This record gives sequence, structure tokens and C-alpha cells, in this order.
Amino acid sequence: MTSSTTAPVLRTDYQKAVAEYWDYERDPVNLRLGEIDGLYHHHYGIGDYDPRVLDAPAPARDDTIIEEMHRLETAQADFLLDHVGDIGPSARLLDAGSGRGGTSVIAHSRFGCQVDGVTISEAQVAFANDQAERRGIDDAVRFHYRNMLDSGFEAGSMRGLWTNESTMYVDLFELFAEFARLLAHGGRYVCITGCSHDVTGGRTKAVSRIDEHYTCNIHPRSHYFKALAANNLVPINVIDLTTATIPYWELRAQSPVATGIEEAFLTAYREGSFHYLLIAADRV
Amino acid sequence: MTSSTTAPVLRTDYQKAVAEYWDYERDPVNLRLGEIDGLYHHHYGIGDYDPRVLDAPAPARDDTIIEEMHRLETAQADFLLDHVGDIGPSARLLDAGSGRGGTSVIAHSRFGCQVDGVTISEAQVAFANDQAERRGIDDAVRFHYRNMLDSGFEAGSMRGLWTNESTMYVDLFELFAEFARLLAHGGRYVCITGCSHDVTGGRTKAVSRIDEHYTCNIHPRSHYFKALAANNLVPINVIDLTTATIPYWELRAQSPVATGIEEAFLTAYREGSFHYLLIAADRV
Amino acid sequence: MTSSTTAPVLRTDYQKAVAEYWDYERDPVNLRLGEIDGLYHHHYGIGDYDPRVLDAPAPARDDTIIEEMHRLETAQADFLLDHVGDIGPSARLLDAGSGRGGTSVIAHSRFGCQVDGVTISEAQVAFANDQAERRGIDDAVRFHYRNMLDSGFEAGSMRGLWTNESTMYVDLFELFAEFARLLAHGGRYVCITGCSHDVTGGRTKAVSRIDEHYTCNIHPRSHYFKALAANNLVPINVIDLTTATIPYWELRAQSPVATGIEEAFLTAYREGSFHYLLIAADRV
Amino acid sequence: MTSSTTAPVLRTDYQKAVAEYWDYERDPVNLRLGEIDGLYHHHYGIGDYDPRVLDAPAPARDDTIIEEMHRLETAQADFLLDHVGDIGPSARLLDAGSGRGGTSVIAHSRFGCQVDGVTISEAQVAFANDQAERRGIDDAVRFHYRNMLDSGFEAGSMRGLWTNESTMYVDLFELFAEFARLLAHGGRYVCITGCSHDVTGGRTKAVSRIDEHYTCNIHPRSHYFKALAANNLVPINVIDLTTATIPYWELRAQSPVATGIEEAFLTAYREGSFHYLLIAADRV
Amino acid sequence: MTSSTTAPVLRTDYQKAVAEYWDYERDPVNLRLGEIDGLYHHHYGIGDYDPRVLDAPAPARDDTIIEEMHRLETAQADFLLDHVGDIGPSARLLDAGSGRGGTSVIAHSRFGCQVDGVTISEAQVAFANDQAERRGIDDAVRFHYRNMLDSGFEAGSMRGLWTNESTMYVDLFELFAEFARLLAHGGRYVCITGCSHDVTGGRTKAVSRIDEHYTCNIHPRSHYFKALAANNLVPINVIDLTTATIPYWELRAQSPVATGIEEAFLTAYREGSFHYLLIAADRV
Amino acid sequence: MTSSTTAPVLRTDYQKAVAEYWDYERDPVNLRLGEIDGLYHHHYGIGDYDPRVLDAPAPARDDTIIEEMHRLETAQADFLLDHVGDIGPSARLLDAGSGRGGTSVIAHSRFGCQVDGVTISEAQVAFANDQAERRGIDDAVRFHYRNMLDSGFEAGSMRGLWTNESTMYVDLFELFAEFARLLAHGGRYVCITGCSHDVTGGRTKAVSRIDEHYTCNIHPRSHYFKALAANNLVPINVIDLTTATIPYWELRAQSPVATGIEEAFLTAYREGSFHYLLIAADRV
Repeated sequence: MTSSTTAPVLRTDYQKAVAEYWDYERDPVNLRLGEIDGLYHHHYGIGDYDPRVLDAPAPARDDTIIEEMHRLETAQADFLLDHVGDIGPSARLLDAGSGRGGTSVIAHSRFGCQVDGVTISEAQVAFANDQAERRGIDDAVRFHYRNMLDSGFEAGSMRGLWTNESTMYVDLFELFAEFARLLAHGGRYVCITGCSHDVTGGRTKAVSRIDEHYTCNIHPRSHYFKALAANNLVPINVIDLTTATIPYWELRAQSPVATGIEEAFLTAYREGSFHYLLIAADRV
Repeated sequence: MTSSTTAPVLRTDYQKAVAEYWDYERDPVNLRLGEIDGLYHHHYGIGDYDPRVLDAPAPARDDTIIEEMHRLETAQADFLLDHVGDIGPSARLLDAGSGRGGTSVIAHSRFGCQVDGVTISEAQVAFANDQAERRGIDDAVRFHYRNMLDSGFEAGSMRGLWTNESTMYVDLFELFAEFARLLAHGGRYVCITGCSHDVTGGRTKAVSRIDEHYTCNIHPRSHYFKALAANNLVPINVIDLTTATIPYWELRAQSPVATGIEEAFLTAYREGSFHYLLIAADRV
Repeated sequence: MTSSTTAPVLRTDYQKAVAEYWDYERDPVNLRLGEIDGLYHHHYGIGDYDPRVLDAPAPARDDTIIEEMHRLETAQADFLLDHVGDIGPSARLLDAGSGRGGTSVIAHSRFGCQVDGVTISEAQVAFANDQAERRGIDDAVRFHYRNMLDSGFEAGSMRGLWTNESTMYVDLFELFAEFARLLAHGGRYVCITGCSHDVTGGRTKAVSRIDEHYTCNIHPRSHYFKALAANNLVPINVIDLTTATIPYWELRAQSPVATGIEEAFLTAYREGSFHYLLIAADRV
Repeated sequence: MTSSTTAPVLRTDYQKAVAEYWDYERDPVNLRLGEIDGLYHHHYGIGDYDPRVLDAPAPARDDTIIEEMHRLETAQADFLLDHVGDIGPSARLLDAGSGRGGTSVIAHSRFGCQVDGVTISEAQVAFANDQAERRGIDDAVRFHYRNMLDSGFEAGSMRGLWTNESTMYVDLFELFAEFARLLAHGGRYVCITGCSHDVTGGRTKAVSRIDEHYTCNIHPRSHYFKALAANNLVPINVIDLTTATIPYWELRAQSPVATGIEEAFLTAYREGSFHYLLIAADRV
Repeated sequence: MTSSTTAPVLRTDYQKAVAEYWDYERDPVNLRLGEIDGLYHHHYGIGDYDPRVLDAPAPARDDTIIEEMHRLETAQADFLLDHVGDIGPSARLLDAGSGRGGTSVIAHSRFGCQVDGVTISEAQVAFANDQAERRGIDDAVRFHYRNMLDSGFEAGSMRGLWTNESTMYVDLFELFAEFARLLAHGGRYVCITGCSHDVTGGRTKAVSRIDEHYTCNIHPRSHYFKALAANNLVPINVIDLTTATIPYWELRAQSPVATGIEEAFLTAYREGSFHYLLIAADRV
Repeated sequence: MTSSTTAPVLRTDYQKAVAEYWDYERDPVNLRLGEIDGLYHHHYGIGDYDPRVLDAPAPARDDTIIEEMHRLETAQADFLLDHVGDIGPSARLLDAGSGRGGTSVIAHSRFGCQVDGVTISEAQVAFANDQAERRGIDDAVRFHYRNMLDSGFEAGSMRGLWTNESTMYVDLFELFAEFARLLAHGGRYVCITGCSHDVTGGRTKAVSRIDEHYTCNIHPRSHYFKALAANNLVPINVIDLTTATIPYWELRAQSPVATGIEEAFLTAYREGSFHYLLIAADRV
């Protein structure tokens, strides 16, 4: 790891606004689920939920639903990591846009290797490092206050890296140029993201509402493949997870931690203007 | 003019949604202002307003404010047309995204030449042609139910063309390719548009709110210049109208025809994340 | 369909050599398998074979193995067609590089729609049309002596199209430009192909041996995604079928219709220099 | 500032010829005007001249005309600096192709900040540094013998930079790549230049005569916008100064310091083959 | 040949100026040499001249020198045609920028095939057609008043084409796009041209003087290869003729038909800023 | 020379396979010819052979033929070096893919300057350095175990460099980017290579057989010119050596050191699908 990057972590007003949002975010949909087992996710879930959780008796119902949502989110992180490839304990991985660190912790427990996470929220860095310390894995799992567009790690140092719903905050060409720099030859990049669907055309009202809610900038699917092609990242697996993620949103809409954005996601997925996608690509 | 284009006017669900929005739109901010003198605009205004209109006595106050807003909108259309170049009566002009036709009518009265307008809203086409008929200029000013991305006019047939706040509904590279096809060598393109500011970074909440409100897709300023450069359209004038348009929005926020989106515009302009821009470019 | 294309079907000596190869090809691995049920494939298979076929008693053993190989090849065609999307009976499909026509026949029986196949081998065209006639589907399934790089069909006329192991004979940028022209907005392209692996580097001896055997020009995987990105074709599914196709080759190597190229395929797949890939992409 | 650049300042015979031209240039049109107030310009003027200067009585007439020309040149430099943006005293500015230093001196007196000038003429560097010393501003205004294509300053170190008629000596893509490197995010580049007009077509005799006179290589206007677009420099103002500069040339043609090139400029401007243009662009 | 092209032959003021120049040109260096044997060239020569011509006695000396110059010019045309490839009598050739037609006539007498010449000078068209008629080859050799950027001939109709010192009047990317359209697959393009040398840098005074003299726009050598690469034209021979053409200019400078531009050419060639180049390229 | 490059010399399995091939290669066609005069070539020859060598009496016939082949190979190296330009004793040259070092030794004896060779075969490095030591020129001629794609030499340090039949092992865009980095402004690159012919189309069986034999990846001729154009390398000479190299192969086919690949070369050259080409280009 290079010891210093002279450029400021936050380059634009937009990045400052995003950082501030996450520094002050205390959304129960993220915190209460994380409290279950200490895996704090900032992403959505996949797979069918058990419909019986909706009929759980009143005192436990909320917790039961939340546990089920957490199970689906963890399943998503596991699914993402299924595509990182063969990773030995001496490899090194990067979690780009690491949030409160959940995926990094799972990756370490699975592969036994060093994992670095970067995020532009200092609060998330502190939270995630604290979690790593509690688990006694802070020698191997470290979170950094850095911009994933300019992460400061050495060229070719990473065997794998992923973005778990963090690409909608940045320009993909800039991002994938940095990823191409970071990955060793033959290294693997895995992306899970929501993206708009070029076939239906421009961003619909539902998609713009999601953009507004998270101060994010959802990209069309085509941009991902153009930016990969321009940066020596070659897909080996592409999976449409849209059908797999809808149940999560249906459950979340009925949960005690619904934030109000659920309807926009469900509308966007159902009208076909929005996809939930996994891309795994090799650095060549 | 070629007599037929076989492709459907509406190619995507997004275009259908935009067309439907404008087919059913009866917003007083567009209709009541147009009723003043029969110039129906679908764009914003520039220049300072007369502050006395806010103090007009109650019965006439609303109309006074509306007249002042209309004056600023007409000033904007006039300013746009100031940049179309020397246009003689035998020239031909295109109003791309012509709405209810106001700018086309002004252009005809100013240059005396044929003006064609295209829009994907059939209701707007009918409305605007009806206006032209009432004015007795329907032999020279005609509106067509066509997609400006694929307008069906002959290559090189237009001496000038403009988009008055209609570029945020389409891909700029596709659009300017069509414009480069339509314009004669040396022809002029004039664009007035709101655009996000690359320096502040991604789309802010205020910008996404505007996108959602109009089902539009605001582009960053950089995209305009990349798409022009890629399509043999060379700027000769670029004017930042942001300061000139803020008074219009301040007046509109206090007007009886405010739609609720005013605050998003004022926030976006003031935070610096959004520009109101005129670009005049030559077809080379 | 446009009635004439003035350019010759065969533009280069290379294309003439390829056409001649297929005009005179009478390889049992293609003919004897096709005779089973009249589905003549020119592609490989996927899925595990039943190991008991190798132990079948002598008189029937050959036929048993051949039937099993045919089952795997048909499974491959079915798998390809699973990714063409929702196709109604009024849609139109193109089989680009249609060989003796097997995949086209399956597609018609599955979707009930018109299917056109093109190949530069006149012998294959005659053979496949004869098969369609025997099945009484020659009103709906037609094969044409045309070059898929310049197929002469109308722009936007196809709802779906595929290449089942035919892309290694052409330049991908030229090919996908033609496919982008042929597909309607939102149409689907499905490709199954062998491709070399950019991570292992240049073409190995095993890959060059395959090239020599079939007079083909295997592309690296990266070329597919660059050519798609350059031609408005956006992946929605990418599946690595390498593991799924190895059993087919292991069986074929032990079959009576082995051609001698089996070892090159098995070496290439096992050394990791070669992939068997499905790509499904939308025309946007 | 980085302390050393290993590449030679002059890379080509062409650059050597340009440097030699300016090392030995002692043109009264530059020197006599500069002597008026110590602001030595190497650029042209804008604005109307006072026609009475032509009627000034004989002994003073020459000086009166020269003073008027100098006023117009200073007005041009002021106009350029009007577009550099909000510059505080701690900012840093670059004058790329700084000549005898006039614009740098004005910039410092206006913004109070550090200004560096670079030129490939050692004589100009010495002259300009001597001027800065005489004014007692040599701690803030420094001139360097460097090539603006490879200036050696730190990446992101400049808040603003300009070229005042110096772009016609270099390749614009190389130049703007270096400027994009030098400017901080959000920094401003201002260019005033003569450029040929793509609409009239190739370089005319008048334009080639100017090229020959100054050993320069005038670019078409389109090249500026292509090179900006390729280098993350986004226009915010483009102003056609052609009409504003013609009076300067008319006056100069009648002045005692006319060099003989005046007719070529007037012809080129009047035939429409040549523009005098200001471009202000943001580094994004 | 397509019967009509609707675009005007002359699109820009620059093209009009060039056409006018050649319409009125009666330069003895072109006319007196052509009168020798009816081959009217508009290009320079290659090869050593016989030094004895300079010592020829007075009455005949002028004619002797002119004959020798004409011999060198014809040698150049022959050398160009050596690189057009194997051309049979049924082939078709294009002389792009055909001047008074000399090279076309030689090509016909050599290959026996149809040759079309295009030029934007109507006077040259008339002159050249008249020559063809006198020779009785006007059924096979025809000159057209057309713009070589938009020649109106059918796609793929030409087996070979050349530009003999005519590329300096046009944009090379536009030109080679048209040539790629005109040439059949495998067709040959041959170019002889003067070009500036990228290694010495920008256009020198001598080069600009040539530009001014002929109202032309000399390109750097690099532009030729970029424009070829962008248009599927692949070099097979590139020959630096600079040394071979210098004797021609030395003789011409001493000849009775010197025009005054000889010194600029000799300076440019000797200082290394200018090359005389042959490029032969295949259409692929 | 920079003292260290951290990247491994061999990046891919393909490169490892190529390195291993050459590490263990002991082909008499390379060794026996080299033993004649200590110039070990790994390339082919040009020029006509003396047909009498085929009739040499038995005991000496083999050696006579081998000497003649060696003479043609040395002629090829000499011809290559004829195009490196004016090289003084203080210049520095690079032999990229230097094999056993023959061309480097000739270059040093011709120009008297420092020559560095790089190859990914450690055995070749050792062999070539041993040869240099025996000749007492190891202070000036050095061979390095390095990858020519990432050679570690300083930017701009080389006055000339060549590849003598080594480009078919690498990606040309990567290679020429490195060469553009290494060459000083105005430096010369010379390439001799076999390349496939775009006009005949894809790689034929004969070309794929050569690829398989040498584990190489022959490029089409067009790739060379695209990669040069993309990397500021501008051709000044291109020579088709196909006719000149065929005699060498005819002789070799009859020689005692024939390897069996001769027929593939002769077929490829004669069918027109393969060219032997020299390209000389300037770094600009």
C-alpha cells in the first residue's frame, strides 16, 4: 500500500454531499439488520422470502421480518463472492465502497485473506474498523477513508475487487480505469448494481426518484459494458438478478424498516426500466 | 420534405411516457401565459422582472405577474433567434421539439421563411397547427408528429434549427447526428438548455427532482460539447444564462401558476450544480 | 425482405475456402447424428453424458454413443434458444451461419414463427431447405445463400438472431454492425462460441490447431465485448459453458465419429486458454 | 513547482525557429507600445478606436496613434482576464506563451496572486523578468524558459491559465492535455486566438500569408473544440471577437508601426475565413 | 456510373477559390511542357536530369530544358502507375484531381481500360476531354466536373485510383472515406504528394509559402497514415521520393518557366521539413 | 537504463510457453548457420540464392547450402539495418526480441554504438551475452532478460529500435506504445515481419499452421498500420519483401536443416495470404 495520496478524498460538491449523507445516515434498515449478527450491509437482498414471516405474531413479527431481510442481504453478498474466483489466503481483495463493512467481513471469513475497504464516509470507516476490531480481524480487514476513484493502492496489488451497489455514485470510465490499475493481470472484478434499461429508453420517473432519494446517478446498463470494454475488463459472467431481488423489496415494503423508496424500486423493476445485475469480469 | 418515414415515431417506453405527459399536459403556466398573445411557450424566461408586478392590486395581480412572466419567456425566444444567423425568406428552419409552437411563430414573423416544427406529442402538433391556421400562416409554419431523432426531412435541407429546452429528453449523440444530417453546410444550430455542471460533480437531489418532475434526463454540460465535436457542429457562441434566468424563477415561485418545481430550479441554480446555457454552432 | 443484394456473397479467398470446405464436408460427426431425428447440427454439446453408453454392447455401442452425443448437441441448441427472449408467432428470427439447419428447425417448432437461415455454403442451403420441405415447414423456415456480413434483410426486421458457433469465421465488428442493423429496437442476439482467453494470453498451439482444422479464426473473448459495445448490443446474460462442454468432448473422443480434433479442444479447455461461452445481448 | 524537467525545452526544428524568431524580434509594434506604460503585449486589440487620433497634428500623431493601439491591446488583455473567474490572492495562475509579460503583470495587479509565465524565447524570459523586477513584483510574477507543452509544473497546481495568441504554434491536443494536467478540478482556461473558419473551408491565401509571416500554424475553429472535448475542458463562454478586432487592424494599417501583415489580417477577417475568438472553459 | 449527384460540386468558398485558380491558370510550366507530346501534367518530376541541357545553345536551350523537365514529369506519372497493380482492360480506374488529364491518358495507353478523371475546374474538364477526343480515346477516357470528395460513382466500382498531387486541397479523412467507398475489395489506391515532416514539427515559412502560392493546405505525413488506417486502406508500399525530386526543382529553377515558387520547394526539401512521398495502399 | 522493473518478465501462460519454446530450442536451422561466422540469426533470408549450391558434391553439399542460407539471412539483417537511419557512435539502439543476438552484433559493427537486446528466453540472453563476450564487445552490446512490452529502459533513450520477426508474439498496440515511449523524438523504428493479407481475408490453414508451429499469433497487415498510427509512429518506407524471400524458402525446403514448416510458408506466400514486409517509421 502506498502511504499517501496527495489529492483530497472529496473532489466535488457532489462527493461531499454523498459523504455527508452517509456520515449522518442512521437508517434502521441498515442498522437493525446489522445488529442481528454484526454483518452490516448497505445493499439489497436476493432470493425468495419465507412468507410465514409476515404472519408471525405481533411482538416478534418485526424482528422476524428483519431477520428474513437480513438473510436475503447476506445471501446477496455470498452470491457476489461466489464470483470472485479462487482466492487463496495470501491474496488481497478490495471492497470499493465498503459501507459499514459487511461484505468485507464475509470475504475474509471465506477466503482467509487480507481485505481492504474504502469509502468516502469517515463515519463508515470508523464504524467498520470498530467492527473488525471487535471480531479480532483488524490485522487483516481494514477500512480506509479514500475515494475509490483514486484509491492510492499499488498498481496490480489486488487479486479481486468488487462494488456492491456503489457504482451509481461515480463515473464508470474513471472507476474502471482505476480498477484496471489496481487489479493484477487475471484478477477478477465483481459488480452488483441496479442499472436502467437502455431498451425502455431514458430514466423514468421511478428511476429519477431513486436517484433523488440516495443522491445517486443510476447508469444505463450499456455504460457498464462500454466502460469495461474501454478498460481491459472482460466479462465472464453476467446474471440478471431482477427477478431474484423483487421478493426482497416486496418484503421490505411490508417491513417496519421501510423507508418509502420501496415503491419506486418495485415500480422500476416491474415496468422493466431497471435491472439488478451481477457482472464478473477478468482483468486482461 | 420526404413523404414518409417508416420507423414509428415513438421507439421506446420512455418516449411513449414523455409523449403521453405532453399530450395530457394542461398546465396553466403554459396555457394562461400563451393566451395573452397567442404565443404558447414551453420554456423559461430570461431578464429581470419588474418588481412592481408583485405589488399590483388584488384583482389584476395574477394577470400582471403572468404577463410579466410571458414577457420574459418571449425575451428568451427572441434571444435564441438572435443567434440563428442571417436568415432570408427563402431559407428553411426547424424547431426541434416545438411544443405548442411559440418559437416557430416568432421565427416566421421575424425571418419570413418556412418553419417546420416537430414534436412527439400529437396533441401539441394539433394545437400548434391550429394556432398557425388562426394566424393565417399555416402555409409557412407547419408542425409534424415526428421524432426529432429521425425527422424524415431531407439531408441538408435546413439553414438553421434550434432546440428550445428539448434536448433533455434524448441522447445528444443521436440528436446531433440527425441535426448534422439536416443542416446545410454552414447552417446554424442554436440550443438553449438547462444542464448539470460537471465541476460540482454528479446530479444533485435538486437536479434529480427536476428529472422526475418532467420525466426528463438532464445532461452534464460536457456532453453537449462532446456530442457537438463528434458531429461536425462547431460552437461560435456560448453564453451562460444562469444569472439571467434566476429572476424568472423567483417571480414564478410567487406567481399563481407556480407548479412546485420552482424551488428545485432555484436550489440547483444557486448551489451551482445547474446552468442555463445558450450554444450556437455552425455545421461544418 | 429486400429482393436483391448486388454484392457477391463471397468477397474474399478466405470466404471461398470456407464455403468450399462446408460444401464438400460429409463428416459423419455431423451426418450420422443428424440422421437420428433429422436435426442436423453443426455445433457441439453441453451437459454430462450417461457413462453407461460407453459400456453398451458391441453392435449397438456406436449408435448409442452417437445418440448420446446428439442429445447433448440438441441440449445446446435448446439452451441457446432459452435466451432468445419472448418470441411470438408473428416475430421473425435469423439463424446466422445456419449450417444444415438444425437450430432453425428447433426454433420454429418452439416459437411457431418465421425463421430465416443464411450460410455461404450452397450445399448447406440446399440440404437445409430440403429438410424443411420434408417437414412441411418450408413456408416458415427458409435457408438462403447469403453472407451474414451483408445479409440483405431489411433494417429492424428481426426480433431475434443467433450465431451458433459461426462467429469464428468473420470479423466481429463487421458482423455486429450488420446484426445491429437487422435487429429491431429491443431485439435479442444470442451467441454461443468458443473463444480464446485473454488472461492466458495469445493463441496457444492447441487453439491454432483448431483454427487450422476448420480454417477458422478464433477470437479472444475481449473482442466479443468490444464489438458488442461498439454496436449498441448490450449483454444481459453471459454464461461460461466450458465445464458443461468438456464431457461432450470426452465422449466424442471415444466415439466412432471422432475426427482427430478432439484432443486439441480438450487440451485448450483444460489448459484454460479456451472458453465455451454464451452471450445474450439486447439491441438498444 | 517541480525543480527539473529533463526533456529539452525545444524539441523540434520548428520550435527552434519560433524561439529564434522571438529571441531576435525587436518589432516597434511591440516595443514602442510597451514603452508607454511598461506593459509589453504580444497580441492584438479589441474595441473601437477614437478616429480623432488619425487627425492628430504631425509631431504627436505617431505617438497618439500608438497610444490608442496600446489602449486597445490592454483592453483585450483585460477582457481575457474578465473570464478567468474568481481568483483570490492565494491562487496560482499560468500565462502560457507569455511573451514580454504584459498580461501576467495585469493579472497580478488585478488578483494579487502568483503568476507564472512560460515562453520558449530566452530573450523574452529575460526581458519579462527584468520588467517584473523593476515593478518590484518578481517575488510573485516569474517567467520561465519552458515549453508550454511540457511545463514541469505540478499536476493540479493552477487555478487558472490562459493563452493569449500563442496556441497557433502548437498541436492543440498535446497542449490541452498538458493544461488538463496543470489545472485543478474546476480550474479555468481562457484562450484568445485567431482561427480559420471551417465553413469557408481550407486555409486561404491570406491565412497562409499570416502563417508564413509569424512561422505559425493557424488552426481551424473546430480543432479547438475537439481538443477541449478530448481533454476534460468544457466551454462556459465562447465569444466571437472578429468584429471587435477589425478596428484595431484598420488603425494599425495606418499607424507608423505597421508591419505589412495588416492587409492579410483585414482580408482574412473580411472574407470570413478567419475569426478572432475567446473561449473560456472549465477543467472537469 | 450514377447519373446524378444533387450536392453542388463546390461546397465552400475555399473550393471556389481553388476552382477559380485552376480555371484561369495558364502557367507556361504546365502548358509549354504539355505541348511537347500532348501529355499535360500538373505535377512535378523525379529522377536526375541530364546536366548538358543547361549548356544547350541559346535558341534551343529553353526548349531543351523544357523537354527534359517534361521527361521527368512523365517519369513520375509512370512511376505512380507502376504501383496501381495488375490492371486488365475490363478494369476501371479513377484519376482523382485529374488536372489537364496527362496521367489518365498514360494509364489508358498502358492498361487499355476505362479511366475517369474528376476535377473541380470546369476549364480543366473541357481541356482534358478535348485532348481525349483528339486522341480518339474519348470513349474510354472521360473527365468530369465533380468533387472528388463526393464523386457520385458507384460504390465498389473502381479497381484502382490515384491522386497525383491533389490531396493537399482536401481533408484526408473525408477523401479516404470516399475512396474506400469507391474501391472494390482489394482495389489499390496510389498517392503521390508533398507532405510536411512531423519530426521537424509545424509548418515552416517555406511550407506556408507553398500553401499560399497554390491556395493549398499541405498535410503532415502522419495525417496520411491516420486517415488511411481509419478507412480500411492498408499500405503495401511507401517510398520517400524527396531525393529523387530535388533535381527536377533545381532544373526548373534555372528554366525559362520558373514561377518563383522553386526556392520555397528547394528550401523545404533541403531543410527536411517537407517530403515527396508515394504511398500505395490496398482496400481491405 | 532504469535499474529495476518490478513487474515479472513473463505475464501470461502464453508468454511462458513462448519463453520455454525458445529456452529449449536447439534447431539446426538456427545453430548450424550461426556457427559459420558466429552470427546467430532467428529470422529468414532475402535475395536469390545461387542455384549451383544445390549441385554441390555430396560431402560439402550440406554445408554449401547452409552457408548460402546464412548469406541470405545476413542480407536480410543488413537490409533491415539500412533503414535505421543515420546512427552515430553515441546513439543507442534496441533489438526487441533479440534471439541469439545476430542482428545486434551486426548493428554494433556497423554503427559503433551501444546496442541492447531484450528477449524473454533466458537461454537466449545467456547465449547472446556469451557471444558478445567472445567478440570483446560486451561493453557495448548487452542482452537482457526482459519483456519488450515493458522493457524498463528510460523514456526517449533510444535513437533506433527494431523487431526482426518478433512482433507475432505480442499485441501490436501494447508493443508500439512501449516503442513510442522508448524512442527519442525523431527516432526510427524498423520492423521486418510476416503478416497475413487482409485482402485475401482471414487466416488460412497455411497461416494457422505457422502459428501452431511457432506458438505465434500472426497479425494482419492492417493491424500494423493501425497500431503505428495510434502510437505516433509514422511510416517513411514500406517494402513488400514477399518475392525476395521466396527463394530462401525454396532453398531451405531442399536443405538438410528443413524443419517441415517450409511448405506452409511457401503455400502461404504463393496463395497470396501472407506477406513478408519491412516497415520503417519515425517517432513523432
